[in-house]
Parts: sequence; C-alpha cells; structure tokens
Amino acid sequence: MSKSADLYYAVEPWRVVENGFDPAYALTGESVFSLANEHMGVRGYFEEGAAAPSLLGSYFGGVYEFEGEDAPGGYRGVVKKTHYMVCAADWLYARVAVDGEQLRIGESHIEGFTRVLDMRTGEMRRDFVWVTQSGKRVSVSFARLLSMVDARRACQRVSLTADRPCEAAVTLAVDAGTVHRTTNRCDWRALSVDADGTLAHVAAQTKTSGQTVRCDLAFTFPQAAEPVLAPLLAGARVRAALAPGQPFAAEKRVFAQVDAQDAPVFAGYEETLRENAAHYADFWRRSDVIIEGDDINQQGIRFCLFQLHQTYRGLSAKHNIGAKGLTGEAYNGHAFWDTETYCLPYYLLTAPETAKNLLLFRHRTLAQAKRRAAQLDCAGACYPIATLNGEEACTLWQHASLQMQPSTAVAYGIWHYVRQTGDTAFERGPGLEMLIEICRYLATRGDWDAQGTGYGYYGVMGPDEFHLMVNNNYYTNRMGQKTLQYTLRVLEAAARAGTDTGVSEAERAAWRAMAEQMKLPQRPDGVFEQHEGYFSLPHIDVNKIPREQFPLYAHWSYDRIYRTDMIKQPDVLMAMFLYPGDYTKEEMAANYAYYEPRCIHESSLSPSVHSILASALGLRREAQDFFGFATRMDLDNYNRNSGEGLHLTSIAAAWVTIAFGFAGLRTDGELPSLAPVLPEGWKRYSLSLTLSGSAVRVTVDEKGAEVVRECGAPVALMLNGERVVV
Amino acid sequence: MSKSADLYYAVEPWRVVENGFDPAYALTGESVFSLANEHMGVRGYFEEGAAAPSLLGSYFGGVYEFEGEDAPGGYRGVVKKTHYMVCAADWLYARVAVDGEQLRIGESHIEGFTRVLDMRTGEMRRDFVWVTQSGKRVSVSFARLLSMVDARRACQRVSLTADRPCEAAVTLAVDAGTVHRTTNRCDWRALSVDADGTLAHVAAQTKTSGQTVRCDLAFTFPQAAEPVLAPLLAGARVRAALAPGQPFAAEKRVFAQVDAQDAPVFAGYEETLRENAAHYADFWRRSDVIIEGDDINQQGIRFCLFQLHQTYRGLSAKHNIGAKGLTGEAYNGHAFWDTETYCLPYYLLTAPETAKNLLLFRHRTLAQAKRRAAQLDCAGACYPIATLNGEEACTLWQHASLQMQPSTAVAYGIWHYVRQTGDTAFERGPGLEMLIEICRYLATRGDWDAQGTGYGYYGVMGPDEFHLMVNNNYYTNRMGQKTLQYTLRVLEAAARAGTDTGVSEAERAAWRAMAEQMKLPQRPDGVFEQHEGYFSLPHIDVNKIPREQFPLYAHWSYDRIYRTDMIKQPDVLMAMFLYPGDYTKEEMAANYAYYEPRCIHESSLSPSVHSILASALGLRREAQDFFGFATRMDLDNYNRNSGEGLHLTSIAAAWVTIAFGFAGLRTDGELPSLAPVLPEGWKRYSLSLTLSGSAVRVTVDEKGAEVVRECGAPVALMLNGERVVV
Repeated sequence: MSKSADLYYAVEPWRVVENGFDPAYALTGESVFSLANEHMGVRGYFEEGAAAPSLLGSYFGGVYEFEGEDAPGGYRGVVKKTHYMVCAADWLYARVAVDGEQLRIGESHIEGFTRVLDMRTGEMRRDFVWVTQSGKRVSVSFARLLSMVDARRACQRVSLTADRPCEAAVTLAVDAGTVHRTTNRCDWRALSVDADGTLAHVAAQTKTSGQTVRCDLAFTFPQAAEPVLAPLLAGARVRAALAPGQPFAAEKRVFAQVDAQDAPVFAGYEETLRENAAHYADFWRRSDVIIEGDDINQQGIRFCLFQLHQTYRGLSAKHNIGAKGLTGEAYNGHAFWDTETYCLPYYLLTAPETAKNLLLFRHRTLAQAKRRAAQLDCAGACYPIATLNGEEACTLWQHASLQMQPSTAVAYGIWHYVRQTGDTAFERGPGLEMLIEICRYLATRGDWDAQGTGYGYYGVMGPDEFHLMVNNNYYTNRMGQKTLQYTLRVLEAAARAGTDTGVSEAERAAWRAMAEQMKLPQRPDGVFEQHEGYFSLPHIDVNKIPREQFPLYAHWSYDRIYRTDMIKQPDVLMAMFLYPGDYTKEEMAANYAYYEPRCIHESSLSPSVHSILASALGLRREAQDFFGFATRMDLDNYNRNSGEGLHLTSIAAAWVTIAFGFAGLRTDGELPSLAPVLPEGWKRYSLSLTLSGSAVRVTVDEKGAEVVRECGAPVALMLNGERVVV
Repeated sequence: MSKSADLYYAVEPWRVVENGFDPAYALTGESVFSLANEHMGVRGYFEEGAAAPSLLGSYFGGVYEFEGEDAPGGYRGVVKKTHYMVCAADWLYARVAVDGEQLRIGESHIEGFTRVLDMRTGEMRRDFVWVTQSGKRVSVSFARLLSMVDARRACQRVSLTADRPCEAAVTLAVDAGTVHRTTNRCDWRALSVDADGTLAHVAAQTKTSGQTVRCDLAFTFPQAAEPVLAPLLAGARVRAALAPGQPFAAEKRVFAQVDAQDAPVFAGYEETLRENAAHYADFWRRSDVIIEGDDINQQGIRFCLFQLHQTYRGLSAKHNIGAKGLTGEAYNGHAFWDTETYCLPYYLLTAPETAKNLLLFRHRTLAQAKRRAAQLDCAGACYPIATLNGEEACTLWQHASLQMQPSTAVAYGIWHYVRQTGDTAFERGPGLEMLIEICRYLATRGDWDAQGTGYGYYGVMGPDEFHLMVNNNYYTNRMGQKTLQYTLRVLEAAARAGTDTGVSEAERAAWRAMAEQMKLPQRPDGVFEQHEGYFSLPHIDVNKIPREQFPLYAHWSYDRIYRTDMIKQPDVLMAMFLYPGDYTKEEMAANYAYYEPRCIHESSLSPSVHSILASALGLRREAQDFFGFATRMDLDNYNRNSGEGLHLTSIAAAWVTIAFGFAGLRTDGELPSLAPVLPEGWKRYSLSLTLSGSAVRVTVDEKGAEVVRECGAPVALMLNGERVVV
C-alpha cells in the first residue's frame, strides 16, 4: 500500500487546474483532461499538434477492430481472434500558424499555460501566451465540449489575440487517418470525404469489423475559408490578418455518428455549454458526495463521479464500461467482470434508471456467451473476461477459460438490480433468460468429486489471480451456489405465475443438488479455505517482499507468483463484500484476519474491498488506510500509469468504498441499511442514495448520521441497527 | 489403444520395400525412407521434383534458426525467442528430362515403381520405368547413400536406360534455396557459390543464427558437363544422346560441413557402399534383436534400431536426439526430456561408448541451463523442455516453466551412465558439476509447506501433462529426492577423495533435509497420490470417451483436459519404471491397478512403460497388448502423422520395452538382472546387451533363457532371481 502521490494539479472543489505545462506530465494530463459522453470520448491531447509525449486518442463506444485469426490448429477454446477499441476520427484536428510559424507546444515558446477542466460543465480549455520567434505575443485559447444532451454533438473553439499585427492561418478539420498506437496502424478506409469551406465531413469504415464513423463539421470563421481535403481528412483553412488586441475566434461544431448517416444537427458552443451546465447541475444534485474538511478527497471524489458519468450513463445497451473507459488504449477498451460488482452498485444506488442498460448489454450479447460456452465444451452461456462486442477478447487461456466470475457476476448484477428496482418484469424476462443459460454453464463446467458427495469447479482461477488451475475455489463455488439458488427462486416464482420457462424438473433438481452440496470447506475457526490445498501452501511474508519488486508481474518469473499463499486480491473476502448478510461478524473477522495479511493488492480494486470490510468490523484505522486517497488514483498518478488512461472501475470503487464502507451501506438485507462512521480528519460528509425509488441524502458528522428524503415516497431503512422511515 | 495399422510396405527382414507409388503415402514414405548419419539427414523425397505431396527435408544436426524476439514487456520467464532445426541445402537436387520432357512423378507416366531401403547398407534406391509422352520407355534409377564412416560425405547416383534413341538432360546440383515449410521462408543467404562442370559448391549462412553450411559436390558424368549457377544453387548439367539399351549413369559425391571450410574429401558411391556395409555388419552384430516367428515385429524392430542409429550414434556432443530426429520439421527438431529416460538406456545397454556424448551435450549447455534457472528466479541449472542449442525453445510457459523433469532426467542419466560404465571420472567431473547446479535449482524451485515439515514442488506439471500447476506431484518430488540423494553421495565420495566441490556443509544439510522430508504421500493400500488432491478429483471413465474424440487436444477444449482424474501418460508409474528396485511388487501392483485404467496414453511413449510394468507384474497379456506393434508405429503409420517425421523416441521405447519388459532387464540393483518371458506368438528372440563392459547375447525361447558372452570379461548377473556368471 506504499504508493506515492504527485499532487500536480491545483486542489479546487469543482475544477481540475494545471498551471504551467510539464512534459513529464503530458500523458497523464491527456488522461486526466479526457472528455466523454458515453457515445464518444477524447483524451485531453493538444489538437494543434505538440512536440511532447502524446497518445492521440479519440474513441467511440463499441467501435472496434479485430486482430489475429481463428486459424485452425492450436488448442481448442483458446482465443486467437481478438478485438480492440480502435482510435477513430480526430475531430479536434487543428493547426495554427502565425507569420508562417507553426504552433507546437514543446517547441514553441509558451508562457502562462493553464489547462482547466470544469466539472460543472464538462468544458476543457487551455489558455497561454505564445511568443513567436519574432517576439510577437499571441494569446491563444482552445476550448472543447462534448454535448451531454445529444451525445453525437461536440464543439471546439480556437481564439487568437496578438499584441502586434501578424498573419494567422488556422485549419480546423476531422482526420480519420489516426494511428492506433498499440498496433501502430491506421484501421480506417474512407467511404466519403468532402468539404466546401463551411461544412466538411469524413465517413470512414474500419477495415476488419466494417463499422462506420461519420463526422460532420460546421465552421464559423470571421472570414471566408477554403476547403482542405486529403484521403482521410476534411476541413477548412482560413488566413487572417490579426490587428493588435483584436481577437480572432474560430468555432467548429461536430456531429459524429456510428453506423448511421442521419442528417447532422449542429449546435453552437454557447448553447451546448448552457445545456451541459443544466445537465451537470441535475447530475450533481443527485450524485454529489460532499466532503467537508478534506479538500483533497473532495476534489478527488468529484473527479471520480464526473469521469464515471462521462464514461457511462445508460444511454445505450451497446455500451459497457471499459477498464479505461474512453480515455486510452490500455486494456483495449475492454469491459471486465468488475462492471457488475463495482460499477453497477454505484448506478443502482444513485441513478437506477441508467443501470438497466448495463444488464441489457449482457442480454444483447447472450448469443456470444452461448457460443463461448460451446467453445469450452459447456452448455449454456459463459460470459467473457474481456469484451467490447460480447465475444471473448482475452487471448490468455488461463484467464479466458478458467475464470468463471464474469458469468456469476452477471447473475449477481441481475439479482442486485431487481432487488434495488423491483423490476420483476426484467427478472422474469431477459434476466431469467440469462440466468438459465448461466446455470446451464455452471451445471456443465462443474463436476462431482471422486466420492460423488460434493459438487464444485475444477481447474479454475478465482478473483485472486495468483492461483491458477485450482479446484473448489471458494469464490467460484460460492457464487455458483448463489446463482443456482437465485435462479431456482426466480423459476419458482415464474412457475407460480404460470410461465413456462423451458427448464425441466430434472434440470432444476440437478441444480438444487449442486447448490446444496457445493464444496465450501470451512475451518472450525470460521476461515474458509480459498481453494483445496490452500492451507498447506508454502507461506510467504508479503511484507518482506522488497518494494522495488512490485508490480510482481514485472519483476518475478511468471510461474513464481502462483505457488505460495500470497494472494493478489481478495477472493473469500470478495464474496463477503457481495453478500455481507450471509456471514456472521465473527466469520468476517476471522477471514479478514487470515487473508488480509496474505494479500498484496496488485489489483487496484483490492483496497476498496478491504476498506469496506474493515469498516464493517470496526477497524477504523485500517478502513481509512485502505481508502487512502482512492479518489485520487489518477489525479495523483498513484500507479504511475495514469498516462495510459484513467482507472475507470477503480473510480467506481472509490464511491463504493465511501457508501458501502464509511456509510456502512448494505443492500442485501430485508431493508437497506446504513451504519455510518466519520473518517478521521473529515468534518462532515454527505452522499445521495436512491433507495426503493426515493432519493435520500445521508449526512454524517461527529454528532452522528442524518438521513433526509429529497424526493419520492417515504422509505424505510435500518440506521445503525434501528428501523427508521424517512 | 485402438490404433490401426496400414501394412503398406512389404515385410522383409532386412529391407523396407515399397512396390508402386501411392500419393496418399507420399509423405509417410518420405519419412520412412529417411537417411541420416547423425551429422546430416534427408527425408526420402524425390530429388528430381514431383507432383505429389512432399516435405523436402534436408537437415544438419544442430543447425537452426531463431524465431520470435525477446521483446520487453509480457510475462517474465516466458520464452518468446525460440529456435528450430532449419531445412538446409538440398544436396540431392536433380532434374531429368528426355526429349525436352521433364520427369516428375505424379505427372509423368510411371510403371513398376519400387523404393527400397536396405538396412544392411543404409542405401535407398528407386527404380521405375518412365514412359514418355512419345511412348519411349526409360528405365530410371536413383540411389543415395550417407557415409557412416565420414559423416560429411554422401553420394547420389542417377541412371537412365531408354528403349529407343532419345536426348537426355540431367542436372545435378546443391540448392540452398530450400524453403522451411513451417515458416514458409528460406532462411539462407549465400556466402559463396561456384561451379565449373566438374566441381560445385554452395556455402550459405542462416540469417539469424549465423551458422554456415558448405556443400561441395564432385560429379562423374559420361561426358562433359556445363556449370549451373543461381544465387543459392550450384551444379552441373549434361546433355546426352541415349542409345537404346545403353545406360547413362551420373554420380554426385557430396562433402557437407557445418561451420567449417575444410578441403573436401570425396569418396565414390561403390566405396561408400562397401564402407557402410562393413559399418552396419558391426552394428547389427552388437545391436540386433532377432525375433523368430514374428516377421512383422522382426522387420519393425530392425527398422527402429536402424533409424535410431542413423539419428544418433555418439559422434558429437553437439548433437542430441530430436523427437523426429533428422526426419521432419515437426517439434522443430527439438530434443525433449525423453532422451535420458528412453534413448540413453538403449545406448548404455548396447553401445555405452556412444552414450557419453549425450550427457556431454547437457554439460556443454550447462551455461544455458543456468541462465534459464535465473530467468525463472531460481539458482542453479534448469534444463529445457525442448532445445537444439541448450536454450529453452518451448514458448508454452505451462510446459517450459512448470516441468522440472528435464533437469531431474539429466541427473538420472548421469547416475545411469556411471552405473553402467563405472566412469567415475565423469561422475566427479562434468557429472558432479551438473548435479550440483541441478540441486541448486531443486533447492530454490521447491518450498516447505505451511507447516514447515514437508518439502516439495508447487505449481508444476509432471510427466502426466493433463494436470497443470499442481502441488507435490509424485514424480517431480520423487525425482527431486533421488537427485538430491545421489548428488549427496557423489559429494561424499568426492570429499573422501579430498576434492573441493564448493558445496558448503550448510548447503548439503539443506539438501539432506529436503530429501528426507520430501512429500510423497501414500495410501495404506500402497497407492501414491499423483499430486495433492488427486484422489478427490472428479472421476472419468476413460473407456467411455468416444474414439473419435482422440486425440483429446484436437477435440476437447484445452482447459477441459485438466480437471478430472484422467491422465495422459504415466507419472507415478514412470518413477517405478526408472527405479523399479525402490518399490515392492505389491506397491507396483497397487499403483498399476489404480493408474493404468485412468491413463489414455496420449503420449506415444506411454504404452511402453505400462508394458514394462505389466511384464514385471506377470501380466503377460497386458504386457503384450501394450507392446502391440510398438516396433511399427511409423512403418504402419499408426498415429496417422508419420508423414511429419519418424517418432524417434518411440523407436527407442520399442527396444526398451523388449529389453526392460519382455527380457525383464533391471539395471538399478547390485547386479544387472534379467527375468525373460517369451511373448505369445514369438518362437524365439534374442538381443545383445553390454553389461559391465562385456557383450552378452540373451536368447529366449519356450524352454527358457540363455545368456552367452560374446566378448569381454566374465560378467555376473541375476537371471530369474539367481546369481550367474557368464
């Protein structure tokens, strides 16, 4: 847990501000200043080009390219053809020259640089003074905005003001010739490219997946512009004589569509800014977390919520939440199984109406999950470890073939969603359809032991990825059992309602037997064995591993990480986080005491689970230590890799830690319950929760907790063990 | 065990004869008719070119190319840069035309085709009548020979006899422009190429490994020839008018060197044939296995011994025994750990003077094994799963990082070699050097269990490759223990002799503790648990797996093969095969009864171990069933993949099964012992063995066994439990 923070950005409650440009922070800055609106996203790159490290990233949700081939030969069920979120049209493309000199940060002489992200509007702007080689001082401003009202819209502004007369040339365009950095190639071929000085567009298609992105631009220049055309680029160029002190302003309005050719609808910068301000006012009203007495975490948690909202807000069932959102190429844009365990709870508790599409994404890709199960010689549906389009994209068989948690996480998500929303129509419809297929997978992937008395999963990798090809992993078996049990309950309810589900009594009986006899061995002291044989594994004192050996994947031989009792991230504790009501406090304490010292937290999601359980166990010091500055993982570049993109699911975990940890929220009991504590150093904090359809605000200070209903019907809940109606 | 045989070739005691050409058997024929002399090898391809399936294979022992790059990133210790035995200069290159028509079997009209391999000379020849498009009948003969006296030498003959006058054109050359089939590229660049009509040569270098092969040719033509030159080809072409019935004969003498530029020494075909005949007479005298009453196995075992001798006979410590020898590209020419367990015993028992170089190969590559251990975060030396040059060539981490048996097999080989030869100078010299480094690997790769009372190996894959990342695999632990114990004995002897070995008492004490407390759990009924948890694995009745699902790797999802009690090949039984004297007959019987029904023999080496143990247990029917026609795996194309190359190590296993199985040979006791039985259907069999430096011939018939000393001093042995001196 010994990470270090940079505190590079100014601490303000509603903004992220960079004062001065440090090339060492160029990539991190691009990630931190990312803008997105679920439909599309851009990193905070310098659109005019720069002589500094840069990952030009412009992404569209669900737009990907294939890589590799499903060639014959090789091992069956091992993925060879994968897919990745592809870098797409750079609709921010701009070029600025004064007196023939090109502006390029890193080469040009720059003074008074500021970059500001305003979380109340979603606007990102840069202002600086460019001193040209002839000594003229040009005030430059770039601003950008993605519409939160119509996600196909975006705007860009460029303005120049010189202190002496000069000749400026400004080009604004869209460029589909972007190079995907990881593969080092352009994945686009032009379908149509046109420009007339006022309007321009590029429609381009990905080479292997055949998806199209069409970007239409409309320009506002102070004077006539000439069209600019290249094979994959369209725009306009204007040349203007700048008078001292007279601003030159250019605006680009963007309309970007995926697999559609609708007539573009443009909106101006000011109008979009107003719309966004209204949108974010509503968002913050419903979702804000207020922390008094800790400005650092205050800014941090708002940055988390802002970025999470930008990435996903339930617009479409075609989108999921990539590990890096729309902010970088790392992890190839793939969504992992943490969507249902870390992100979904946030949406369910703050904006439940946006959560359904996350589950409909899984329903939409049920056919792919069924094909995947068949590839693995199983019945039913096996959900992918990593995906954009529903197909398994992970080429490491040890993850793609052995990790069952994506499938049980979908079942958990359905259960959690229905529990929070009461949407039984979904539960009996698409929910049950998924549940049945997941159970069929669970019933064919598992096996009975040699004695025929215990059921379980063999050759798996649980959430703790430091143990591979193990048998009867606690988490896997437990989640399998919970999934079977929940599905049987839904089937019973469906049967009572007279619905034919197509699941025979024999099949249900088999599932019941598997669930009842699931192997979940527990020591007399309450500790569950993480997997068969775990208790006799060689012990390693993880605190004695030198700090410079982390991350272990980079410093240890790959096979070496798998043969001791060291765990990468919580496994037994993860099940306790998901179903806290199933365990006694003594069990939780025994397992926390046993497994926590064996965990090295090599997953960025690991500390949050430990913090939440520590809160539940009254271990306030540990809870706060594990929370650390979870809200600032990317702002402060804790893991030294924020430049690759933001840790979107860790961002969700920060909120989850505050709500389920400090505020003691539990959602698996009869009633939602709260048992808030005030972290040391915080004067007061409050968060909004949607419980049983009503919005309440929970405010906690040293005197205690207060729950106020903000809208909706009165809601019953447990507060510090007592039933209250708010 | 339900394989099927083709019996395509005529059954003769000393020859392999193909009558008529069947394109469906083209590739298998190329493998079966392979010639080699350890230094170089050629498949039995049609050197004049053919319109039939062909894998033109010309190989030189230890000549390889690299593939892949050790790029940064990715998992540590996982091999990315590998190497493969590269297809090299085709020194058999020939082209034949008559009246401008090119001879190409598969297109040309051919009658009376025969191809004959003579195992008394190592000559391969083809004879047939070519009926040209104008109806002329041309008798064609191709013959080839690799010298067993000077392995750099080879000869080729072409002869044509027409029934009517015609114009013939014959080109003989060496072509280094060969394409390696698996990679589909030529890996050679020319260093020098020259020809003058009488002599020709090509010297070429591999592109990445920088090895050179230089082939010099000398021609004998009935008339003057013109030189033929191309960037990677050199030879001579002769045009001749053929008179009816007058043979036209051309001869090519070859001198091929690796990484050397010595002046070529040529020898003619007849001289080489005579030399080879003498060589093979001596070889068969020392190595022949005579089987009376079973012509099929008689031919089969001779084919095995002939091919094994061609592949390896101890010429150089630079060579090892590839899984396919010098007969194909499959397995990339790599030698595996079966060299020490299956091949070395054959050499030790028939020609012990040739065995030393196999072990010196490991000593020569000790530095590579030490580097590999370091890559795996271990001390000492870790020998590779697959290699040509001593570096690990296996890119599958689950094999390369988890299988410890190559290292313990080297230790076993040293022990076995010294035991058979009494070469204590080797044992205290290079042997001990290797043993110490292997023990250092064993002492750092393993670990003490959580209780600190048992030592063992975690995260391994034993010989049974259907269980991956298991803990305390019996074979691995047992071989580790035997290696530590043997090394400690050699160290003690060295210490008594006053030699400083550089191994501290502390290190020896640690090794002693590990060996003493090695985890080798055994049930009360004597069955050893193959690995921790094996006994509770889900059971599968392997006899119920439909035949069409074999091989399982091709029909089952990769992960599925790992999660039941089904085993691919013997594991516990393998240890019993290597050290039979360590186990009681009851233990052997209990383990055989338990594990044999769980084994699917997906390794071609599996049946031999079972046959040998069945013989030891008096299970004569099973011993014979498992032997099957082990001698004919390739002649009869049992596995439908002989076309890729011969199964060289299975070939060794056939001899091992006869010697250690039917003849009941054991070499791990005080004295060598024999307990021969006569397989049903065999009238009599005999084999030569070198025991304690003396050659004896063991003859077995229904009356019993007779052991006759053929040369050397009198030798004591156990025969059917009684001490005899021969």
